[in-house]
Amino acid sequence: MQQSVIKYFLDLNCIPNSNVMNRRKFLKGSALLSGILTLNPWDLFAGQHNVQTKKREAKNIIFMISDGMSSGTLAMADLYSRNILGHGGNWMNLYRENKISRALMDTASASSIVTDSAAASSSFGGGFRVKNGVLNIGSNGEHYLPVWQKFMKAGKKTGCVTTVTITHATPAGFCINSESRNAEPEIAEMYANIGFDVMMGGGDEFFNPLKRQDKKDVYDLYKKKGYEVLKTKSDLKNVKKDTKILGVFNTGALPYSIDRQNTPALQTIPTLAEMTSSAISQMKDHKEGFVLQVEGGKVDWAAHANDVAALLHDQIAFEEALKVVMDFAEKDGNTLVIVTTDHGNANPGTIYGPEATEKFNSIAEYKYTNEFILNSIHADFNIQQVKDWIYETNTIRLTDDEARYMLNFYSGLEKQEAGLYNYKKLPFKAYSEIQKKHNSVGWISMDHSGDYVELAMFGPGSELLQPFVKNTDLHYLMLKAASVE
Amino acid sequence: MQQSVIKYFLDLNCIPNSNVMNRRKFLKGSALLSGILTLNPWDLFAGQHNVQTKKREAKNIIFMISDGMSSGTLAMADLYSRNILGHGGNWMNLYRENKISRALMDTASASSIVTDSAAASSSFGGGFRVKNGVLNIGSNGEHYLPVWQKFMKAGKKTGCVTTVTITHATPAGFCINSESRNAEPEIAEMYANIGFDVMMGGGDEFFNPLKRQDKKDVYDLYKKKGYEVLKTKSDLKNVKKDTKILGVFNTGALPYSIDRQNTPALQTIPTLAEMTSSAISQMKDHKEGFVLQVEGGKVDWAAHANDVAALLHDQIAFEEALKVVMDFAEKDGNTLVIVTTDHGNANPGTIYGPEATEKFNSIAEYKYTNEFILNSIHADFNIQQVKDWIYETNTIRLTDDEARYMLNFYSGLEKQEAGLYNYKKLPFKAYSEIQKKHNSVGWISMDHSGDYVELAMFGPGSELLQPFVKNTDLHYLMLKAASVE
Repeated sequence: MQQSVIKYFLDLNCIPNSNVMNRRKFLKGSALLSGILTLNPWDLFAGQHNVQTKKREAKNIIFMISDGMSSGTLAMADLYSRNILGHGGNWMNLYRENKISRALMDTASASSIVTDSAAASSSFGGGFRVKNGVLNIGSNGEHYLPVWQKFMKAGKKTGCVTTVTITHATPAGFCINSESRNAEPEIAEMYANIGFDVMMGGGDEFFNPLKRQDKKDVYDLYKKKGYEVLKTKSDLKNVKKDTKILGVFNTGALPYSIDRQNTPALQTIPTLAEMTSSAISQMKDHKEGFVLQVEGGKVDWAAHANDVAALLHDQIAFEEALKVVMDFAEKDGNTLVIVTTDHGNANPGTIYGPEATEKFNSIAEYKYTNEFILNSIHADFNIQQVKDWIYETNTIRLTDDEARYMLNFYSGLEKQEAGLYNYKKLPFKAYSEIQKKHNSVGWISMDHSGDYVELAMFGPGSELLQPFVKNTDLHYLMLKAASVE
Repeated sequence: MQQSVIKYFLDLNCIPNSNVMNRRKFLKGSALLSGILTLNPWDLFAGQHNVQTKKREAKNIIFMISDGMSSGTLAMADLYSRNILGHGGNWMNLYRENKISRALMDTASASSIVTDSAAASSSFGGGFRVKNGVLNIGSNGEHYLPVWQKFMKAGKKTGCVTTVTITHATPAGFCINSESRNAEPEIAEMYANIGFDVMMGGGDEFFNPLKRQDKKDVYDLYKKKGYEVLKTKSDLKNVKKDTKILGVFNTGALPYSIDRQNTPALQTIPTLAEMTSSAISQMKDHKEGFVLQVEGGKVDWAAHANDVAALLHDQIAFEEALKVVMDFAEKDGNTLVIVTTDHGNANPGTIYGPEATEKFNSIAEYKYTNEFILNSIHADFNIQQVKDWIYETNTIRLTDDEARYMLNFYSGLEKQEAGLYNYKKLPFKAYSEIQKKHNSVGWISMDHSGDYVELAMFGPGSELLQPFVKNTDLHYLMLKAASVE
């Protein structure tokens, strides 16, 4: 009996990837142990929240994706938080507090060393690598059952929240099969027919009969299926418990965080943290548990635009959602939290040079995204107006030559830029090159990168994490952690 | 007594950052335990190599620095190894085999969010952040005792091997104090006077009376102090055991690995792995143990040059040295291995696009560094000669416009490039931009970055590693791991 007690406590406390917190728990456990060796150990810790058992199951899973987050994005968000906001970033603070397990992850797709978001989400979602652009369908037409459908079959509630359209590649990759990530109008209908519990983000254009090409009222489909449809932050606040919800808060993607902060009209749109909090509330009391994907989708868009202020503020907003999730998970004790990205994007980083620190810190003066700033310039501006506007919004003093060069993109003297998510063909790259001289941040391109990416886990199941994983491994880890399938 | 047995084994097995390997050890330990509870636990594991004790001391420390290695460099070296060489990179394989503890590290200096190599090495070496350019001297003139001197006082043998000059910032930061990293001629003398045991790399220009401005014969100083002086790979092979050695194998830095591979004349110069192996042999039997710094210094230079082939081959050469170190450390059991970088540089990464994989793999066709290729072009070349030479060495077909543009840097029509380590003012950036179209690898700049960097540890002391550290933390970790000071 005493030997089995010893074996039990050895097992109990020696969780792989144990950390300082576990160590403290262990000390607590062993102190407790010293007086009570004759008790049955399996009775002993019934109700003991402070001791993790090796085999504990993940009742809930929250999978957080800062889309297109290069390692430099994570580092710069922490640096900005420390230098400007006066505290470490929420993600890096989990490391400082020694709360998590970590890995590096290989993000490749079936067709390339550099994935797109559809193939990346399919790797997590379907457990197989597929070609870029495709959602959970193999090259011979194989349909891989998406992981949120597996959990739905197991009785769990299922949901996704994102700052881009809810029908976008990253949520879609956990939910549905499609030959094309661009089939967003169809994906809007598929969600309702499958019956996910909580879906929130942007994308009115794919639900609204006035905006859809086929004039179909997809909201009506949701209502017929018993969903409550939310359009504003106040709808979200007043949501009924225990109903399925569809929240669609903008025509396309939701606004960037920095623009929302400085534009009162945008503040009726909920933040990622607010959507996340509501989604958890809506599902947390379900007795079979829930699974939730949380995507910071505009981190990726900001990287595509080489827009450092948009990037950092959206990364910080993502980490505010992470705080909401961690506050829940730490209290709950039965929730596996996975926080990662689907791929790098543009590999931004701070660059060596005189006054690198002061230059980086000057980003705190930026008031809007480059999208907003550049979209507000028109061909009939004069040089001085361009200079004034840039100074007003970025505290950057352009030279006359720089202002003239920027204006040339509006007058047609310079060729318009193209690029993913650059719908208005604004001179993102040209302006970012000018900003770089003032903020000491550089970019390798305006597209995804194939770097290995950061991944952290907390809670039951995190002990399964190996130091190096492929994106597909997470599919099977989630199922194993929750003992599903 | 039984309670103390339990406490002992709980302590014994519950190493923070324990991993699968430790877990196996633990299971072995507990199986062993089950029959022998009445023995004194302190006797029990005497001579048990399979069970780590919490308090095991690091007799030896090997600190490996791939200078200026961005996370993208590590990922691309692994990818290149997998795609071209048919096996994973040696560094990432340690993760795949679950052998190490990992952290992210903040690399800032006292003067900037982006460090130089002198301040970075001083953080590790002196335990205090100093200003960029300075070696272990604080802003009020404080001299911080360098860590290899601390270990020397504790009776250990001490050494450094590097692919740049042995008097360069990274080895110097573990060894000496100086107001300027540029004082390499003086640093050459300081090493001899302090008496480090094994110092190997390049830098004849700082030792040779014919090359030094002051005509001093610094080799003679070393010989008078009892050093054996080595100049070639065969000297290294025939080195006497138990003598102090100074190995200086080139005028300046050692050649890049890719140039050495394809230039027989350079093959008399030892590789980093060969120097590392000799350094270990020379010091491993010392009864008080040894400490060794191993620097892949030209990884940084390749990043400064935005030269992807130079970068990948030197990173792979660094990882060959890592394999030598791990083979020793795993067998030895008393050696703490730290493998990291001092800062990012240029944040290279593979970029999304059609045929990204094929383009990246085409780097295998590159025969020489851009330094060698561009230095072989002369102003009197014609367009066709430039095109032929580039095709011969890189299998890249330049357009006539591209060849003309490159030639313009030689004829003076385009302004010569400057840049650290670009001694010959070659058009590194211009050519790298052309290569990018063919190899799908981009760079944010030609200088250091402030990213948080990868860090891994193996062996006794690695259990002290937290998930997020500052560079200075490693100074104290080494001392604690070895119970020194």
